[in-house]
Amino acid sequence: MEAKEEDVRLGANKYRERQPIGTAAQSQDVKDYTDPPSAPLFEPGELSSWSFYRAGIAEFVATFLFLYITVLTVMGVVKSPSKCSTVGIQGIAWAFGGMIFALVYCTAGISGGHINPAVTFGLFLARRLSLTRAVFYMIMQCLGAICGAAVVKAFQKSQYEMRGGGANMVSSGYSKVDGLGAEIVGTFVLVYTVFSATDAKRNARDSHVPILAPLPIGFAVFLVHLATIPITGTGINPARSLGAALIYNKDQAWDDHWIFWVGPFIGAALAALYHQIVIRAIPFKSK
Amino acid sequence: MEAKEEDVRLGANKYRERQPIGTAAQSQDVKDYTDPPSAPLFEPGELSSWSFYRAGIAEFVATFLFLYITVLTVMGVVKSPSKCSTVGIQGIAWAFGGMIFALVYCTAGISGGHINPAVTFGLFLARRLSLTRAVFYMIMQCLGAICGAAVVKAFQKSQYEMRGGGANMVSSGYSKVDGLGAEIVGTFVLVYTVFSATDAKRNARDSHVPILAPLPIGFAVFLVHLATIPITGTGINPARSLGAALIYNKDQAWDDHWIFWVGPFIGAALAALYHQIVIRAIPFKSK
Amino acid sequence: MEAKEEDVRLGANKYRERQPIGTAAQSQDVKDYTDPPSAPLFEPGELSSWSFYRAGIAEFVATFLFLYITVLTVMGVVKSPSKCSTVGIQGIAWAFGGMIFALVYCTAGISGGHINPAVTFGLFLARRLSLTRAVFYMIMQCLGAICGAAVVKAFQKSQYEMRGGGANMVSSGYSKVDGLGAEIVGTFVLVYTVFSATDAKRNARDSHVPILAPLPIGFAVFLVHLATIPITGTGINPARSLGAALIYNKDQAWDDHWIFWVGPFIGAALAALYHQIVIRAIPFKSK
Amino acid sequence: MEAKEEDVRLGANKYRERQPIGTAAQSQDVKDYTDPPSAPLFEPGELSSWSFYRAGIAEFVATFLFLYITVLTVMGVVKSPSKCSTVGIQGIAWAFGGMIFALVYCTAGISGGHINPAVTFGLFLARRLSLTRAVFYMIMQCLGAICGAAVVKAFQKSQYEMRGGGANMVSSGYSKVDGLGAEIVGTFVLVYTVFSATDAKRNARDSHVPILAPLPIGFAVFLVHLATIPITGTGINPARSLGAALIYNKDQAWDDHWIFWVGPFIGAALAALYHQIVIRAIPFKSK
Repeated sequence: MEAKEEDVRLGANKYRERQPIGTAAQSQDVKDYTDPPSAPLFEPGELSSWSFYRAGIAEFVATFLFLYITVLTVMGVVKSPSKCSTVGIQGIAWAFGGMIFALVYCTAGISGGHINPAVTFGLFLARRLSLTRAVFYMIMQCLGAICGAAVVKAFQKSQYEMRGGGANMVSSGYSKVDGLGAEIVGTFVLVYTVFSATDAKRNARDSHVPILAPLPIGFAVFLVHLATIPITGTGINPARSLGAALIYNKDQAWDDHWIFWVGPFIGAALAALYHQIVIRAIPFKSK
Repeated sequence: MEAKEEDVRLGANKYRERQPIGTAAQSQDVKDYTDPPSAPLFEPGELSSWSFYRAGIAEFVATFLFLYITVLTVMGVVKSPSKCSTVGIQGIAWAFGGMIFALVYCTAGISGGHINPAVTFGLFLARRLSLTRAVFYMIMQCLGAICGAAVVKAFQKSQYEMRGGGANMVSSGYSKVDGLGAEIVGTFVLVYTVFSATDAKRNARDSHVPILAPLPIGFAVFLVHLATIPITGTGINPARSLGAALIYNKDQAWDDHWIFWVGPFIGAALAALYHQIVIRAIPFKSK
Repeated sequence: MEAKEEDVRLGANKYRERQPIGTAAQSQDVKDYTDPPSAPLFEPGELSSWSFYRAGIAEFVATFLFLYITVLTVMGVVKSPSKCSTVGIQGIAWAFGGMIFALVYCTAGISGGHINPAVTFGLFLARRLSLTRAVFYMIMQCLGAICGAAVVKAFQKSQYEMRGGGANMVSSGYSKVDGLGAEIVGTFVLVYTVFSATDAKRNARDSHVPILAPLPIGFAVFLVHLATIPITGTGINPARSLGAALIYNKDQAWDDHWIFWVGPFIGAALAALYHQIVIRAIPFKSK
Repeated sequence: MEAKEEDVRLGANKYRERQPIGTAAQSQDVKDYTDPPSAPLFEPGELSSWSFYRAGIAEFVATFLFLYITVLTVMGVVKSPSKCSTVGIQGIAWAFGGMIFALVYCTAGISGGHINPAVTFGLFLARRLSLTRAVFYMIMQCLGAICGAAVVKAFQKSQYEMRGGGANMVSSGYSKVDGLGAEIVGTFVLVYTVFSATDAKRNARDSHVPILAPLPIGFAVFLVHLATIPITGTGINPARSLGAALIYNKDQAWDDHWIFWVGPFIGAALAALYHQIVIRAIPFKSK
């Protein structure tokens, strides 16, 4: 395709010479990176390797710790009569974003550090992992989330049931469509950041991309919480929403629950499309 | 010029031996970096390359997400009767700074990650991009900002109109000159940081400069918001000010609107001058 | 062992090709890292080297500064009638996490940057340091913590005694079992992050692992404080708990004190087990 | 000296094999770094180089921006009747720490990024810069600080004079000795971090040391502010204290002013001693 030729001749290459931020400019040849090959849908060998199950265990433990710390932080804030003597709503946003930062840092080398079915779904759409692995990760994430919320409930059962247990619901004053929209755009922000952090082309060119990776991913989660806690409590992670809803287990939590699966999956799909088609121009290249 | 000779012989080079912070000291030769060539004013080839339009789309999407998250955060704070049960004014500052951090990280390799007409203007003055590209970026940034604010208004139209919709105005107790001054110095802080992060000479010498780049740029935005939210709500980004003003669309927002274009452009120009003349000593070198 | 063979053949190696985050993918051979050798229990040579005592002094100074800054921050918050005019509970969490970040950064190259007997214990279980060194570090950490708290008490003796002096106690509304559980999981989060940051295999493969190391360790401490300050005030560091308890020296502080030794040591042991057996699969490999 | 030999043979070298955090372990030879040579007291050549004056201008501009942003943030908080509708005391701490992070990042390659006479004094004691340069830096820092505070006063003169203008004073309830102690230990934390970040030996061995450098330095400033704002408002920077005092210019500010010069200089000297004698064991080595 001509467009692709021009991209290589006039665009990406030429652009590097005045790329303003974080360019190492170490190599000058056109093809200084290799895209990872697409993962097959089913990869039978995976099921007999220890690293496959280890990755699942790592996702379980990470999602367990994620729900434990975040729901405990939420409980500490909501049960206090004065928000001033707690870490506040901003502290809740830090708990979610900070845990994703620390856990992505810890598990990226073991399982890829998804800790979120929407992230797994987005990376699956981009063929970065097999269907088998994607389904296995999502199940382990949901199990981990349920266990994490359960431990928090065990600390103070009555408070947990009275205060909502961190379950996601659409707040009064907002329609279900608002909630769905907030989840879609919020998950787009997160999964777009994940794709930017894992782009093989950029990793080969911008020295800060592979180094900082877990930090902007964690910040993306923090920022979406700053914006949408007043609307839905912020899901953008179906495992987190399921774990909190199942342990809280009241009608209000279940009525809106579909929003926290449909929204994140649509947002993740849009981010995957945006990255593959616009940013990487895959259709032009694959010719 | 003698001054330049001395700079090379006595200054930059000699100084490295006791440079206190972040020196890798890997190479010893005098000329270990190359300045990127100045961009031409008009570069016809750009208009027929996919990467040019892709960069514009990336600026549009980034500014859209920037306004969406930040104005939503502002709305969550201003509509609550008690600021203590929100993320607070500090949370607003984090939303602006954090989004710039994440978005510069995500788009730096695609478009340079400006997300701000004042940054584009400053880099244009330093001849880092062509006039064609600068104008195209600014248009896409403004369109993105308008769309982002519009989505937030769609969530809660009446609240948005009642609470100011995040539009920038000079607060009572301050004159227009105060507001203009705050915008000039605030944008200087931001664009000065951008220039420091993109200096070819420093990138070749200080290992932390290219690696951390998006982080101090995001922090600069956060810090200016900490300081000047009480004065103007903090613009330092004409696209952000235009998007919020146009969607809010009331007289108060338009009366002061020129401040949020003139201020940032003056601040960006001063930062470009300071960096080119004082820090890089371009007049001495170009002889 | 067959499982280990598969790990090498199908798992870790194959996985790298689609590892989503922070992979440098520079080398392709199977064995691109070396595990450090296990430390002996007793290493007589250590006792006659200056670096051994220097490491102990560094641990003393770091733990001294840690308690000084954090307990002073706690005192500033608790003695103010309105939490709104202080740095707040979130500020306390930042003080603990931020100090660990800065001090790990400063002392990692001197002593390994433990600043916490639970971290020393976990790393000792993984045979990363000798028993002699572990015991010496713990003693220096406790002495440093006691001195740090003592300096804070010297500033305002009566306030210190009236306000609890930052000593860890199980809050009313929680049982001792809750407190023990919170300390176990909290220390697990911290020590799991430390092990992830110090994994020789990951350091060789993921470029962000060695670079960011002190930051996620500090964040782990910050996050655990966000979640468990309402339960125990958050120990996860027996030296910090001992220093505050000894200088406060009232019955309430001593009654629960065992929790802040038993909990962190169990949590650290679980994290060491998880890392060595699940993540590194040591039993399979050592065959 | 025998001690030094042992350090090399038993200590630093051997220790690397199990150094827990951030070790790149790339080279195995004993002498993999070079200490920068001590700066002479007077270096006549400096006075005729452009880079010397450029460094002074950079220190002036950085300290100007530092005072401008931080004092403006302080004013925004102190003049509001409800701290909840401001960025709060924690926001003030972020302003000080964040500005140091951003400014050290921007000016480290130009002037070393001191922005603080106490840092300049500490590095001078360690012979990292000449006396001429140290005095020149301090003068430029003080001039920058005065100008920065003056601009803030120009925005709202009456408020500035009524609310203290961010000048450092010992708070009621604390003695002058307490204030002096707080300044000494606080500056020790800062200058100790600076020395750790600029240690040639560690920079050669720990990959995260040169990369992260500005971040822990900024965090050190943030953390000391969290702890000591209730005691003195936190100086740990004589230029900042002088600028605020001179522009505020009332007796209360001048009465305690000596504390904010003597304290920081003692703290910086102690940090220089600790680093040179304990951490680097210079006396043993220089034999």
